[in-house]
Formats: sequence, structure tokens, C-alpha cells
Amino acid sequence: MKKDLTRKAVLDLEAYTPGEQPKDKSIIKLNTNENAYPPSRKVEQVLTGPVDRLRLYPDPVCMELRERIAEIYNCSVDQVFVGNGSDEILALCIRAFCEKDGFVGYFEPSYSLYPVLAAIYEMETRPIRLPDDFSWTMEEDYEASLFFLANPNAPTSILYPKKTVRAFCEGFSGVVLIDEAYVDFSRENCMDLALSMENVIVSRTLSKSFSLAGLRLGYAIGPKVLMEAFYKIKDSYNVSRLAQDIALAALSDLGHMESNVDRIRQTREKVSGELEKLGFVVFPSETNFLWTKPPEGKTAEGVFNDLREKKILVRYFPGELTGDYLRITVATDGEMRALVDALRGC
Amino acid sequence: MKKDLTRKAVLDLEAYTPGEQPKDKSIIKLNTNENAYPPSRKVEQVLTGPVDRLRLYPDPVCMELRERIAEIYNCSVDQVFVGNGSDEILALCIRAFCEKDGFVGYFEPSYSLYPVLAAIYEMETRPIRLPDDFSWTMEEDYEASLFFLANPNAPTSILYPKKTVRAFCEGFSGVVLIDEAYVDFSRENCMDLALSMENVIVSRTLSKSFSLAGLRLGYAIGPKVLMEAFYKIKDSYNVSRLAQDIALAALSDLGHMESNVDRIRQTREKVSGELEKLGFVVFPSETNFLWTKPPEGKTAEGVFNDLREKKILVRYFPGELTGDYLRITVATDGEMRALVDALRGC
Repeated sequence: MKKDLTRKAVLDLEAYTPGEQPKDKSIIKLNTNENAYPPSRKVEQVLTGPVDRLRLYPDPVCMELRERIAEIYNCSVDQVFVGNGSDEILALCIRAFCEKDGFVGYFEPSYSLYPVLAAIYEMETRPIRLPDDFSWTMEEDYEASLFFLANPNAPTSILYPKKTVRAFCEGFSGVVLIDEAYVDFSRENCMDLALSMENVIVSRTLSKSFSLAGLRLGYAIGPKVLMEAFYKIKDSYNVSRLAQDIALAALSDLGHMESNVDRIRQTREKVSGELEKLGFVVFPSETNFLWTKPPEGKTAEGVFNDLREKKILVRYFPGELTGDYLRITVATDGEMRALVDALRGC
Repeated sequence: MKKDLTRKAVLDLEAYTPGEQPKDKSIIKLNTNENAYPPSRKVEQVLTGPVDRLRLYPDPVCMELRERIAEIYNCSVDQVFVGNGSDEILALCIRAFCEKDGFVGYFEPSYSLYPVLAAIYEMETRPIRLPDDFSWTMEEDYEASLFFLANPNAPTSILYPKKTVRAFCEGFSGVVLIDEAYVDFSRENCMDLALSMENVIVSRTLSKSFSLAGLRLGYAIGPKVLMEAFYKIKDSYNVSRLAQDIALAALSDLGHMESNVDRIRQTREKVSGELEKLGFVVFPSETNFLWTKPPEGKTAEGVFNDLREKKILVRYFPGELTGDYLRITVATDGEMRALVDALRGC
């Protein structure tokens, strides 16, 4: 037997666990914040195009798609990076901006991938523990090479005000990656910070508001010099031809996305009210999911298991910070009615 | 102005340059080793399926596709990893197997991405310079954490015999990644080394023989413990739903691939002969491209430019090791006739 061929940090790593993707199609799936409504018709038109074009390598720098994104945000293509899902962008941030003796920052709780990414690259972390109501908090004179700031935060669904975020970015010496995966469901966003500040990048995804989680398409907006670093170190052809074409179609039909988002926001407000009537604590969501604490006498784990038996899958994150809560995707009105009915009987 | 926010190694990095993808559709494109023939009809059937499934995240571990690959090679799914192109697999090798004080090895010349990957991760390199005929050579007691072994080698088109490769792997203490991007065009392959040795991984791609360069789908076969390391550190959803479905369709129609490969091999032998008649030195190719040196009195750069003026794009790699040669993709018979006619007039 040879020595271990795998890096020690990788052997020791506790990998990120994606939400379950059950094979049973009859399950109501409220566990991974996908969009209950189909993507734009324009996407369908792309797919029926000639298959022969798949012979050829994709544009390694996604120029046509970047032109469309730059048009939407009124910026230069040099300020736009396109990735194989925003996960690729998060990983690139560590590889681009963190020297070995640097630090990676993030809130606790937040997207649980952030500490895993730091561990993969053997980076020290400086997490900021959020208070019990998950509101904004920051240590004085806080320093790190990179801060992953999910806004709205996940799994808490809360949006931090732009002026708070701006003040933090101004005083911070490293790069701030504002992960706006859910921002289309929010009342404000921080895009203008990425377009005006030299240490701020905003990442977006087509997975949630555009109903394209299966596609893997994320993009980042930020200072040209930081986007250049991404282009230097990404995989040569990181985004497939189909992904580029489909994303272009989806981003050319913003109206479709907006009307889906409207529906989901309306459903969100309705379900929030109904859960509160059942005694659940529901945080003010600016996303397509609810962060909620079951009424006294019930545990989150118990409700999770009860729902699962009734073929409704929600997300439960065990652990000190999150173990009292459930994260529930806002899906169709019908699916939400089934959820509320099921919760009445839990 | 803030300090540089980008890592110094990234600022200093000379990025990999993918082959040109010209917009002019009238250009005969022989520069990036794509396949001149369309992918399987089964791929078309996948694309006309319902678009609604794109709403949902893909299987993060590509199980159905791995089952098909495991069936082809008569191995376990635990010995199979699927990536967003084999480029992702190459990058993962460094992140999985190279400690900071380790070394990355590869031949010179070989795939020019290898030293770029090493530089991104600030790894020291131990390149092995090939002799003038690009045949196998190795230093005595050579050690490294990882050796990238393209076989057949690119851009030289030469296949190293399996017994030579096996002997090297047996004496080498690190991981050997045998990059078999072109192996479907060869008379033998090293898959059984990956299935039997504890330090050998074979990577394959659908970009060349399956006519799917635009798709981004590569896979690796190797010891379970090494595949596990990849799964721990890859991006959570690295392969899109479409890519998984299309790859499954393509790998369920091996006959289509094999008949395309047959055509290309026949064309390859014919063009090799014609180029030799014109005074070119042509290396014995086991790939879908030719590595060739123009006749005396002509420079590779000159021929490259002449062809370009005639709207035929081939690949020219400047530099001491490669600057005397051209790399020419074997495309359709018609395109090859146009090439030979053009070369007659160069």
C-alpha cells in the first residue's frame, strides 16, 4: 500500500452537503429553493436549435452573454464574469484574492459552503457569529482577505440594508463578495456598490429567479481588475455553449422572470401569515424561502420528519445555530396549501 | 487606491490561451481539434425533451451517467468521476493531490495548460524535456506529487506504448493522470492501468471523438479513494442537467462515435501521405490532428499565415520547442482537400 496520495486537508475535509434530490416524483420538494415555475419559452427555442453547433468549443469568455449582462446593468463587459454556477465564482474568489496567510470571513449562520471552500484551500477563517435574531453585526476593526456576504442571507432569508453593507465595504481592506443569489426576490440590491467600489463584487445566479438551477449559470459584476483575475485562473472553457445560449435567451426575457418573482412573493406573504397563525415564528423573508421556527412544544427536527412522512421535503440544518429552524422553499400556491394542511396535522 | 486585492501569483500569471474561435463562418477551422461530424442523433432527442426539468438542480454526483460509464469499462461507479470538461479534472488533480511543498510534472512539449495550472496553485514544477523526435524519455529516480501524462501526447500526436507507461507508473510515487483526450483515435489505451493501479487515473472527454466540445463533459476513472477526493472538493453541482443527459445519450450510442472515428482515421492516413508528398514531415498520429513540419525553405509561421490568408485556420505554437511545427485538425475529406490544395500554393 502506497502512502496517502490525497492531500491531508482534503482527507480531513467534511464536504459540503447539497440538499437531497429525491427520485420519488410525488414528493413536494421545498428543500433546495428551486423555482416552481418553468423557465422562459425562449429557452425552449434555444434547445430546438441545431445540435451540430455542439461540435465546436464554446466562447471561452462568453462575450455575447456578457454584452447582454453589461447592457442590463449599464456597465462594461470588462466588469462582467460568467461562471459555471455562482459556486464557481465563490471558489474563484478564494483562488484569486486570498494569499496563503490570509483570512476568509463570513457570517454564522450563512451559506454553509463558505467554510468548506476555505477548508479546501487551507485558508484560516474569521467567522462572525450573528445574534439570535440574525441581524447585522460586525467586530470592530475586522480584517480578512475576503468576506462572503450572502445578501439576502441564507438560510435566514433576511436582507441587510444597502447602507449598512456599503459602510462595511468602505471600512474593509479585503474583497467583499456580495452573494445575491436571492436578490430578485428582495426590495433592494447592492449592484451599484459593485459598479462603484474597488473591493466589491456582486454575484448572481439564474438558479432561483430564472428557474434554471439545472443549467449552472452564475455571473459576477465588479471592478475590471478583479474580473481579470477570474479570467486568468478559471477553467479554459468553463461555460458550455448550451448554457451560454440559454442564459442569453433567459436574460432577454426579464419580464418572464419578473412575473414569476411576483407570483412567488405574493405566495410568500400569504404562507408567512398562515404559518404565523399556526404559531410558527417566520422571519421577514426577502427570498424565495421562509426561515421559520415551529411553535413551542414542537422541534424543527420533529416537524421535518413529520412532513417527510407526508411526502413534503423541507430543509433542516442540525446544529447549535440552526437546529431550531426549518428552511422552506416558496413554491406554487397548491404546494403551499399542501404544506399548511400538513403542518396543521403535525 | 487600495493595495492590490489580487493574489501576487495570479497577477504574475501568464494565462492559458485557448485556440481562436473565429466569428467568420467561412473559415475552415483546423486549429482546435474539434470533430467535423455531428454528434449522435440521440443527443438531438434529449434536447427536444421538456425544458421544465431545468428548474431543478442536477444530480450533484451524476449517478445515472456514472452507471453508464461503469458499465462500459466494467468497473464500479466509485471508480468514476464526472467533470465540467476534463479541464476541471486536471485542476482538481492539483487541488486534491499536491501538498504545498510538492511538485507537478509533465513533458515539454505537452498540453500547455499543465504549467498554467501549476502556476495558479503556486506549485513548483519538474518538467521533462522531450528529445527532438518527441519520443518517451524520463529522468532516473524522478519524483513528483503528480504527473500529467497526455497520451497520445498533444501537440505531438504520438502515442506512448502502454508497457512504457505502466513501467513509469509502477516506479512513480505520486499520482499519474493519464490524459486520454484523444485516445479513441489510437490503437491502444491505458484504461486497465487506471482500473488496476492505485496511483493511476485516466481522464477522457466527449469533446473530440463524440463531437461534443461545446458541451463540456469529461470523466475520470481511477481508484475509489482518489475519486472520493475529487467529489469532496469539486463545485457542488459541477455538471448541468443538460450535460448529464446529453452525455448519457452520447455514451449510449458508441457506434456513432466509432464510425466517426473510423472516417477521421481514414482521412488522417490519406492526408498524412499527401503532406509527405509535399515535403512535410508528419509524425505518426494516433489522434484527430497532425503534427507536421513544413518542407525546408518554409517556416511554420509562414505557412500558418499563408493558410490564414486563404481562410484556413491551423494552430501554430511559437517557441523554441514547438515553433517549427504546425498542428492541423483532421476534419472532413473536403476540408482536407482544400488544405492540401492551399498548401500546394504556399
